[in-house]
Amino acid sequence: MKTKEFNLTCPIPISQYPNVLLAHGGGGTLMHNLIEKMFMPEFNANEQKIMHDSAELLLDNKRLAFTTDSYVVNPLFFPGGDIGSLSIHGTVNDLSMSGAKPLYLSAGFIIEEGLQMETLWKIVQSMKMAAEISGIKIVTGDTKVVDKGKGDGIFINTAGIGVIEHNLNINPASVKLGDTIIINGDIGRHGIAIMAVREGLEFETSIESDSAPLNDIVMKLINAGIKIHCMRDLTRGGLSSALVEIAQSAKVGINIVEKDILVREDVKGACEILGFDPLYIANEGRFVTFLPEQEVKKALDIISSDKNFSEACIIGKVTEKNPGLVTMKSAIGATRIVDMLSGEQLPRIC
Amino acid sequence: MKTKEFNLTCPIPISQYPNVLLAHGGGGTLMHNLIEKMFMPEFNANEQKIMHDSAELLLDNKRLAFTTDSYVVNPLFFPGGDIGSLSIHGTVNDLSMSGAKPLYLSAGFIIEEGLQMETLWKIVQSMKMAAEISGIKIVTGDTKVVDKGKGDGIFINTAGIGVIEHNLNINPASVKLGDTIIINGDIGRHGIAIMAVREGLEFETSIESDSAPLNDIVMKLINAGIKIHCMRDLTRGGLSSALVEIAQSAKVGINIVEKDILVREDVKGACEILGFDPLYIANEGRFVTFLPEQEVKKALDIISSDKNFSEACIIGKVTEKNPGLVTMKSAIGATRIVDMLSGEQLPRIC
Repeated sequence: MKTKEFNLTCPIPISQYPNVLLAHGGGGTLMHNLIEKMFMPEFNANEQKIMHDSAELLLDNKRLAFTTDSYVVNPLFFPGGDIGSLSIHGTVNDLSMSGAKPLYLSAGFIIEEGLQMETLWKIVQSMKMAAEISGIKIVTGDTKVVDKGKGDGIFINTAGIGVIEHNLNINPASVKLGDTIIINGDIGRHGIAIMAVREGLEFETSIESDSAPLNDIVMKLINAGIKIHCMRDLTRGGLSSALVEIAQSAKVGINIVEKDILVREDVKGACEILGFDPLYIANEGRFVTFLPEQEVKKALDIISSDKNFSEACIIGKVTEKNPGLVTMKSAIGATRIVDMLSGEQLPRIC
Repeated sequence: MKTKEFNLTCPIPISQYPNVLLAHGGGGTLMHNLIEKMFMPEFNANEQKIMHDSAELLLDNKRLAFTTDSYVVNPLFFPGGDIGSLSIHGTVNDLSMSGAKPLYLSAGFIIEEGLQMETLWKIVQSMKMAAEISGIKIVTGDTKVVDKGKGDGIFINTAGIGVIEHNLNINPASVKLGDTIIINGDIGRHGIAIMAVREGLEFETSIESDSAPLNDIVMKLINAGIKIHCMRDLTRGGLSSALVEIAQSAKVGINIVEKDILVREDVKGACEILGFDPLYIANEGRFVTFLPEQEVKKALDIISSDKNFSEACIIGKVTEKNPGLVTMKSAIGATRIVDMLSGEQLPRIC
């Protein structure tokens, strides 16, 4: 088939960025620029919400959610999980963030020649178990093998289909002034668990990833009739990037309180050693929920009754002040602006 | 989240295959073994037809097709196409092979740090154009960047959703004794186009890939009420692997006639130089259709009226003899058995 001539005006300034950088996949501003300037205008024609965790599709009045993620985490196995379970949880969670019930997954493997067969088997087993726990079915797949030195063990892509059975519009556009923001636990563990292995750090206790499926707890909230305005999982770019995205997209101010954001002591210590801010560290089982005031108690009761999320708490409010900005009241009482992650911080964290 | 203990009995004999080989992704017997022994039993519980080009899902009596493919073709640009257009055509065609109308695509990019921004832009443009021509929408995506030396320019995964609006069951189980097999043109061009670039071969005329979307022609067949029994696109493993899969799966014999299978002279020449058999070479715009005798004329008229497929013709029949086997009557009148590709032939062809 003949290809037509290309429109050669690249929307990313080539003089500034002649090559793709690690940070273009890091979850921060460079990645958002790439998506907003290159991918969205070309693919999307503004019809779909590609920036949201999943796209919503209408099929004969049936609302479907559709999402994809590739997993390139290094190392493949880490405390609390592995690339297999992560590839299920991540996509299940993206579907869950629109309140969809996850139903079906595809699995695409890109394997580097020479990967131990037993390693592949462990990953497959882990995917199977994670899919069973999440109640999602892997129904179609693909296997590619690339020559040694042209990959890195294994990369996995999963795409997911879910069904939206509620009448809510769970997305940034539904966020209202005065909304309360709930989080389902402490932050920073996934990123630090990965970095500790990569850097060979040892702590008194092992820091385990928080990687977990969120569909069960989200379904409980929805089935209880909680009027959720918005949800977002706190993956690449961490809590701060998720909140900045929502503040910008909803054109509201977000104010959070530092002392209410739980960070485990060992995670704090590791962050200090590595020079990271926990607000920017990726999580794989944490999400924020934006709710009207009157729904907060009921929602908190439901979330914290799950033994994995017993530390769920309020971390902030949606404000009229500073639209488009996230501000944080620090432990000593000062207020500072929380930016989106600007460059790469932790490459290949998921 | 705690992971449970793994069941460590790997279904692929570790002593024989301690490591994944290129051939495990090559479209032949090793890949089929991996899928049948490792992936299908773990993921599938025999509920879905994972070996088919796409899975069929029932959602409120609505029949959906769902499929995924990762594209790792090397080089990224080749005569007649590039990884971008290929990543659209391949997934559109997988959906089409069940007679589904392709609707939505996801796009997952795994980019190697250092890829030229302009190269990415050309690929994105090519995807956009191919999606427009195929009438499919790219609605959700993901971008990962891996460190230099841990990828190879760019890998793209697409997953596709289509809707099945006919009442046929287009799959190997519907193949009947006496069915006629139609192909929509010559074979071998995609694989040879890639290999020619890779090996630096030069021919009098450039050999272009046959890469093309097949949804339009398939929809024409279906809308004309043609009772298609089975379709299969002739990608990895080529015509022979596709036919062997169907013969084994439908437990029928398939007899094809060598002189009726079109191979361009320059493709034949390249195959001789490179030591390949055109029957095993990947195509990206070719498919076989299994039909009852009385539908053949109408179907051939429809297919060959498309200017891209004017050379469509009959290549064989489904027979009672030799169930599970594909036999070919050679140009000199002898009959030989056509096997599935056993090892790797052309790695990273798609």
